[in-house]
Amino acid sequence: MRIDTYIHLFILSLCIACSPSDPESQTGELNEQKEWAIAIHGGSGVMERSRFADEEVELYLRSLDNALRTGERLLQEGASALDVVQVVLMRMEDDSLFNAGKGAVLTADGHAELDASIMDGLTRNCGAVTGLRTIKNPILAARLVMDSSKHVFLSRDGAEEFAMHHRLEEVDPGYFETKRRKDYYLRKKSEEVSQFLEEKAWSKFGTVGCVVLDREGNLAAGTSTGGMSMKRYGRIGDSPMIGAGTYADNTTCAVSCTGWGEYFIRAAVAHDVHARMAHGGDDLATAASEVIQKVIPELGGNGGLIAVDKT
Amino acid sequence: MRIDTYIHLFILSLCIACSPSDPESQTGELNEQKEWAIAIHGGSGVMERSRFADEEVELYLRSLDNALRTGERLLQEGASALDVVQVVLMRMEDDSLFNAGKGAVLTADGHAELDASIMDGLTRNCGAVTGLRTIKNPILAARLVMDSSKHVFLSRDGAEEFAMHHRLEEVDPGYFETKRRKDYYLRKKSEEVSQFLEEKAWSKFGTVGCVVLDREGNLAAGTSTGGMSMKRYGRIGDSPMIGAGTYADNTTCAVSCTGWGEYFIRAAVAHDVHARMAHGGDDLATAASEVIQKVIPELGGNGGLIAVDKT
Repeated sequence: MRIDTYIHLFILSLCIACSPSDPESQTGELNEQKEWAIAIHGGSGVMERSRFADEEVELYLRSLDNALRTGERLLQEGASALDVVQVVLMRMEDDSLFNAGKGAVLTADGHAELDASIMDGLTRNCGAVTGLRTIKNPILAARLVMDSSKHVFLSRDGAEEFAMHHRLEEVDPGYFETKRRKDYYLRKKSEEVSQFLEEKAWSKFGTVGCVVLDREGNLAAGTSTGGMSMKRYGRIGDSPMIGAGTYADNTTCAVSCTGWGEYFIRAAVAHDVHARMAHGGDDLATAASEVIQKVIPELGGNGGLIAVDKT
Repeated sequence: MRIDTYIHLFILSLCIACSPSDPESQTGELNEQKEWAIAIHGGSGVMERSRFADEEVELYLRSLDNALRTGERLLQEGASALDVVQVVLMRMEDDSLFNAGKGAVLTADGHAELDASIMDGLTRNCGAVTGLRTIKNPILAARLVMDSSKHVFLSRDGAEEFAMHHRLEEVDPGYFETKRRKDYYLRKKSEEVSQFLEEKAWSKFGTVGCVVLDREGNLAAGTSTGGMSMKRYGRIGDSPMIGAGTYADNTTCAVSCTGWGEYFIRAAVAHDVHARMAHGGDDLATAASEVIQKVIPELGGNGGLIAVDKT
C-alpha cells in the first residue's frame, strides 16, 4: 500500500502502515485482511525553523506521534476508518499545540471560530461545520451532521444549535483560548492594521488532518481547523469544504489538505486528487504531486496534503 | 461550439449560441472572433406538470427568455463572460418567480437566507456567500468577494458586514418575501412537522444559474439560490460551494448545477464535470451525462446542470 505526504512548503506530518508483508502483522489467521494505514498532519506553512526552538519542534512531533499511536491501536483492534479519523482528530483538537479546537487562532473579534469536515470513502457520505464557537470538538459535530441529518454542511449559530440539540459537549468560548494565541491577537490588534486579514503564511499553521485505510479496506478522511488568524466576515476556508480540504472515495483515495485555503477551494484540491486517479488513471503519487507542486503554485498558493490509497 | 443541458429530472432552462457559421454573426470583420454562448436555468425538481397551469409555465419561460436576451445583447456588445453571468443572475434574483433573491423560499424561522457563487474560467478566481438576509443581490456580493477580497467564501452576518462595508444595496428582509412563499411557509408551519427539513423535491425548485462563453473565448459560471424551503441550522447547499454547484475553467467548461444539494456536494459535481474533461479526455456531453445520469442517481440524489465548453 502507499501513503504519501506531498509538500510545497513544510508540512508537519507522520504516517504509519501495516501490511501482510509486514511480519508484525502476521498474527492470527493468514487469510485475515490485515492491511491498514494512517497518516496525520498538523498543518503546513512557512514555519521558519529559526523561529521554533528544538524543544518546540520536539513537542509537536511527540504530540503527533501520540495521536498516531492512538489511531494505530484502534486500527489493530479493527476500528473503522471513519471512527479512527474521528478519534484521532478529537485528540488533536484537545491538544492546545494545534490550530484546531483548544489552541485555535483567534479571529479579528478575539474568539475562536472552528471548522471541520469528515468523509466516508465507502458511502461518500460526509459532514461539515463552519464557525463553531462553543462546541468542544468540531470534528464530532461534523460526524453528527453526517450521521444524524440529511445534510452535509451546517454553519455558525445554526450548526451550534444542531450540535447542542444532539447534546454534544459545550464549553465556554474561553476554553479554546491559549496564552500564545491571545498574546498574538493582542499584539496584532494593537498594531491596528487595517488589512482584511493576517496574511503571514505561518499564521495558518496548525490545521489538523487524518486519513485512514482500515482493515476492511475502507477509506476515510477528516480535517479540523481554527482557520486563519485574525479572520473576519465569517470567512470559510477549504478545511470544512468537501472537495476542497477533505475527500474520500474507496475507489481511489482519502485526502486531507492544509495550506492557503482560498487556493485549495479554487482548485478543488482534495477532489482533484481523487479525479486524477479516477478519470486520468494516475497513481496517488502522481496525482497528489501534480496538484500540490504544479496546480497550486501556478495559482499563486501554497500548502500540502496527506493522502492514502487502498492498493 | 457545444452547449448542453443535462437532466435527471425536469430542469427549466434555455440556451442560445452564436458562431461564425451562423450567418447572423457574420457582420463586421470576418477574422473577428464572433463565437459566444449562454445558457441559463431556473432550477430543477419534480415539477409535476399537472401542478402548474399552462399560464404559469408560460410565465417562467417568458422570464427565462427575457434574462437570456439580456445576456445575448451584452455578449453581442462584447461584454465579458463574468459580467454577463453577474447581470443575468441579478435580473433573475430580482424576478420573484425564482428561488433566488426576491421570491426566495423561507427558512424554518420564516425569512429568506440567500446563497450565491461565481467563478471566472480564465483565472479560476471565484467568490461565494452564504446566509445573506438583507443584501438585495447575492450574486453581486459573491462577485465582490471575488474582486475585492483575498477570500472566496464568506458566511452569514460576516458576509453581510462585508457587503455593507462595500455599500452593496441593502433591503429590508421583507423585500424577499412573496405571498406564494409566505403562504407555503405558514401552511408548513401550521402542520407542526418536526422533521428537520421540508423534503419534497419540488420545494427545491427555482435555483438560478448561468454559464457563458464570451467573444474572447473566456468562460464563467454562477449560481444563486434561497436553498431548501424550511431549512434550518444554517444549512449550506451546493449552490455557494465552488466545485459542487459552480465551476469554470477556460481549459474545459463552465458549469452551474441545481438539485438536491447534499448529493451534489458529495460528488463535487461541477468540478467533476471539469475533471472528467481535463483528466479523462471526455467531451462535455459525456462528462455531464455521466455525472447527472449515473453518479448522482447512484448516490440517491437528483438534479441537473447546465454547462458550456469553448470548443
